[in-house]
Amino acid sequence: MMTKKRIAVDMDEVMADSIARFQEWYGRDFQLELTLEALHGKSAADAVAPEHQPALRAYPNAVGFFRDLPVIKDSQRVLQELAQRYEIFIATAAMEFPNSFLDKYQWLQRHFAFIPWPNYVFCGDKSIINADYLIDDNAYNFDNFRGEGLLFNAPHNAHETRYRRVHSWQEIAEILL
Amino acid sequence: MMTKKRIAVDMDEVMADSIARFQEWYGRDFQLELTLEALHGKSAADAVAPEHQPALRAYPNAVGFFRDLPVIKDSQRVLQELAQRYEIFIATAAMEFPNSFLDKYQWLQRHFAFIPWPNYVFCGDKSIINADYLIDDNAYNFDNFRGEGLLFNAPHNAHETRYRRVHSWQEIAEILL
Repeated sequence: MMTKKRIAVDMDEVMADSIARFQEWYGRDFQLELTLEALHGKSAADAVAPEHQPALRAYPNAVGFFRDLPVIKDSQRVLQELAQRYEIFIATAAMEFPNSFLDKYQWLQRHFAFIPWPNYVFCGDKSIINADYLIDDNAYNFDNFRGEGLLFNAPHNAHETRYRRVHSWQEIAEILL
Repeated sequence: MMTKKRIAVDMDEVMADSIARFQEWYGRDFQLELTLEALHGKSAADAVAPEHQPALRAYPNAVGFFRDLPVIKDSQRVLQELAQRYEIFIATAAMEFPNSFLDKYQWLQRHFAFIPWPNYVFCGDKSIINADYLIDDNAYNFDNFRGEGLLFNAPHNAHETRYRRVHSWQEIAEILL
């Protein structure tokens, strides 16, 4: 029997557009715009004035931050195709933000109902993930990962050069399908 | 450099005494006693009369079920010793009970503060866990696990014979230390 290879997929900025929420809340709280240019090579908190940074660092642990996030383009279609050929697990570093647990769980149920909940992993250190591929926007998650990392392009990781970069779900489809 | 071996540890009936909570709530709701004899070889729900089973199946997803559970004897002391020689991860099948997330997180912070939150894993299918050992009371979690399973003795798993059984944290200390 051929066993399927396994792909682990990060949520934020890979499946869910959390930058959109940072932009929305930053505009709401400070009447300022958080541009993609400002986010180049930086986390959202590091991209704003020092006096606004504590607020932005706190956003992801506010209940509701992860609720109703927009879905990243093509992620549903490509993951549905990948699920025919691979085992798909969701691996999100939710432990950093305990108030995000239910939002993330419900978001997955709503937008990726074809991935069953036994395949959700809320973790911290992703070296615990036993998979062949990890698609993630944070390169440090690949450092002790046993499989192959695919770095999902995001403004903050612009300067990262150590891992294979993918720019879209369409590009992932071309590599893995 | 020697890298530490990694032990993944289940929570319920291994670190946290969830049977105590089943007994407490069953007594509260039905004025009946749930004895360890009745639990021999059975889940809590299967150990009661058919008309009480839906209630018991719902208990673990009630907010508060996992709050303030008693700590299993010697688990703190032995895990603290193991943490000197091994990497310790907590691997709990929390996805089955989304309302348990915060209770479980806070319970770990309170009773096992020496295990950092990046080492918590809330999952479903434990074959995603990349570790050398898994200490768990459910044998099905070992079926696709890449490391060695140690079956923590519990009333419900009395008839399981496929895996090495450990009866106490003291016995785990003797094996792994």
